[in-house]
Amino acid sequence: MDDTLKGNLIVGQSGGPTAVINSSLVGVIREAKKHPEIDGIYGAIHGIEGVLSENLVDLRREDEITLEGIMRTPSAALGSCRHKVTPGEYDKILDVFKKYNIRYFFYIGGNDSADTSHKIGKLAKESGYELRVIGIPKTIDNDLAITDHSPGYGSVARFIAIATMDAGKDTEAIGIVDKVKVIEAMGRNAGWITAASALGKKSAEDPPHLIYVPERPIGIDKMLKDVKEVYDSLGHVVIVICEGAKDESGNFLSASSRAIDVDAFGHKQLGGAADALCKLISGNLGLKARFDKPGTIQRMSMVCVSEVDLKEAYMVGEAAVRYAAGGETDKMVILVRETGPEYRCTTGLADLEEIANAEKKLPDEFINAEGNFVTQKFIDYAMPLIGGPLPVYMRLRKYPIALA
Amino acid sequence: MDDTLKGNLIVGQSGGPTAVINSSLVGVIREAKKHPEIDGIYGAIHGIEGVLSENLVDLRREDEITLEGIMRTPSAALGSCRHKVTPGEYDKILDVFKKYNIRYFFYIGGNDSADTSHKIGKLAKESGYELRVIGIPKTIDNDLAITDHSPGYGSVARFIAIATMDAGKDTEAIGIVDKVKVIEAMGRNAGWITAASALGKKSAEDPPHLIYVPERPIGIDKMLKDVKEVYDSLGHVVIVICEGAKDESGNFLSASSRAIDVDAFGHKQLGGAADALCKLISGNLGLKARFDKPGTIQRMSMVCVSEVDLKEAYMVGEAAVRYAAGGETDKMVILVRETGPEYRCTTGLADLEEIANAEKKLPDEFINAEGNFVTQKFIDYAMPLIGGPLPVYMRLRKYPIALA
Repeated sequence: MDDTLKGNLIVGQSGGPTAVINSSLVGVIREAKKHPEIDGIYGAIHGIEGVLSENLVDLRREDEITLEGIMRTPSAALGSCRHKVTPGEYDKILDVFKKYNIRYFFYIGGNDSADTSHKIGKLAKESGYELRVIGIPKTIDNDLAITDHSPGYGSVARFIAIATMDAGKDTEAIGIVDKVKVIEAMGRNAGWITAASALGKKSAEDPPHLIYVPERPIGIDKMLKDVKEVYDSLGHVVIVICEGAKDESGNFLSASSRAIDVDAFGHKQLGGAADALCKLISGNLGLKARFDKPGTIQRMSMVCVSEVDLKEAYMVGEAAVRYAAGGETDKMVILVRETGPEYRCTTGLADLEEIANAEKKLPDEFINAEGNFVTQKFIDYAMPLIGGPLPVYMRLRKYPIALA
Repeated sequence: MDDTLKGNLIVGQSGGPTAVINSSLVGVIREAKKHPEIDGIYGAIHGIEGVLSENLVDLRREDEITLEGIMRTPSAALGSCRHKVTPGEYDKILDVFKKYNIRYFFYIGGNDSADTSHKIGKLAKESGYELRVIGIPKTIDNDLAITDHSPGYGSVARFIAIATMDAGKDTEAIGIVDKVKVIEAMGRNAGWITAASALGKKSAEDPPHLIYVPERPIGIDKMLKDVKEVYDSLGHVVIVICEGAKDESGNFLSASSRAIDVDAFGHKQLGGAADALCKLISGNLGLKARFDKPGTIQRMSMVCVSEVDLKEAYMVGEAAVRYAAGGETDKMVILVRETGPEYRCTTGLADLEEIANAEKKLPDEFINAEGNFVTQKFIDYAMPLIGGPLPVYMRLRKYPIALA
């Protein structure tokens, strides 16, 4: 069977940037160059918006030094977008593809991008235009279905693990003044990043002491009780909370309106989850609490990049082109974890539609019974993804003095 | 002249932790071991609080592997404090020193610690108890007088430079959605850390685009005008603001109560400077703004440590012991920048009293005329302190497509 389809290729990047999304892009470009049936290798500036406005660039002309540099540059080198394509725009996209003889379309993104890609593929098929569409997974949130994990996650997991070790050391030293530290991790609906804060913890004394994820809404009274317990035991507390953490009514903690909330004017708590939790703690327990919110720095950190993540992001980019060249379409590349004692992933395929309509949350077995920490099963799952050992921090042995 | 004074040594750490404060501690311990006149090498747990409560540990017994590890562990390994010593407590401190035959006292800290150390030294002298007191400079804020810079600053400067490059890349890619990014840097009264965010900038397009420091209170109207101008030119804006940034009335931006402020209930803006600026920008310019607040992570990051800073922190620890052994007292070690094309610092001494009663702010020549950025003179001053080149990030060349 000859699956050869001659024509041009377009690749775009979509959604929140990651530290390794450019590695996928370079994977696509380099693999595409190996396929004689692929002529033009085009990049869409700001994703599907660039397709709509015909804001396209010639990626074949980028030199190798630039590509090498781009691979270690965080964030979407082509520019990203959060555009929801309207029905009329889908026709326009197909017109652009026809105009530029695009036969290969690769979209590096999450479930929204999978939906966009699936609809483009479907429309092309219905109108008899031969087009191969492959999604390339990308999200720090790790909430894509079917794939073992998503490129982008391992690096943010590494960042948050190290940041928690670091900020925790700060609190350990000055906790007699700043008693409670709250770190706010990204993730609107899924606690994968928040959970990764536990990866540097070796003993009960080490941070984090408490972890709150949106998958397990928890009573504010219970949270305060947890904090009090850790404080009574250690004299300071480090908490990692997801920006999307919810209280027992399922409301975002950041917009809580319970009577217990401390607001001098009796108004709703607004702002971030960490800020809200700090106010609850200082108001109700009388413990000075401060928060760190690394925000977008966490998903962009190249000094904390996971080499495993960087390599896998490249691998899914390469694989996407190979799958498309082999005749596949309307699919997303996934990572498949091999069984065995050594961590190893290969690539596979899933239907774009299945990825588009699902959201993978932390499974129950990854959260402890109390809903305030992760389990060893989660650690075993996530540890190989951060690409090697974390820094080793030490404590003095603090030998007592024997006076003569 | 024989300056030999036989007895024991106490070292403590005070104030906000840094990434390199333990390097100074190890410098003290290793140098002290070379001096036969120094017998016990004791550590005060949580600084002067440990002296008061006789919570002391034997640092001579710590093994070399631990010391090596501690040197690359951020934060105060002995524990820190923010204790203001009362007059009665000074007598108690001297009693403890006499009880343990302490003849050498080293306090690693900033200007508050210099004041404490100076008063202890003065009291010892008045009561005829021979004691050598040397302050060891430590602060991320870089606000200590006389010294060219303070150990701890170079590392946080490196962190904030990289974080700004990273978060800026995020905004460059997704700025069509999240148009304005505000990064909040530490520093209550001095803008040294905030200023260092400029160290990774190579072109006008690179972040940061605007920098606001407390040394130059600036009108909110002017700030909004600045933001609008950058936005109109680039389509997105990255701002680094000091947590202690002030408006034209000299009020902290974080507690602004101007009518222009956007608060649905007409109340004062509360919370952080970055949060306040985001609300001002979104409320007045209609541009979606979000903030990153790395908080204590910035002062603890060992992956972003400046090797120059780490080395100098060790050097001032070592030097303190040498100076004390040589007969000096009531002094703080300072860093003296040598002239010449290559960056090089040696150590010197300043009176503790002079350090205690001063606060070094960004000089006028380090801030631009508009009050919204730093000058080349600042870059020249700060660049050698961050210990080597920053990551190199690239952009695609984005060649246009020539359709056949």
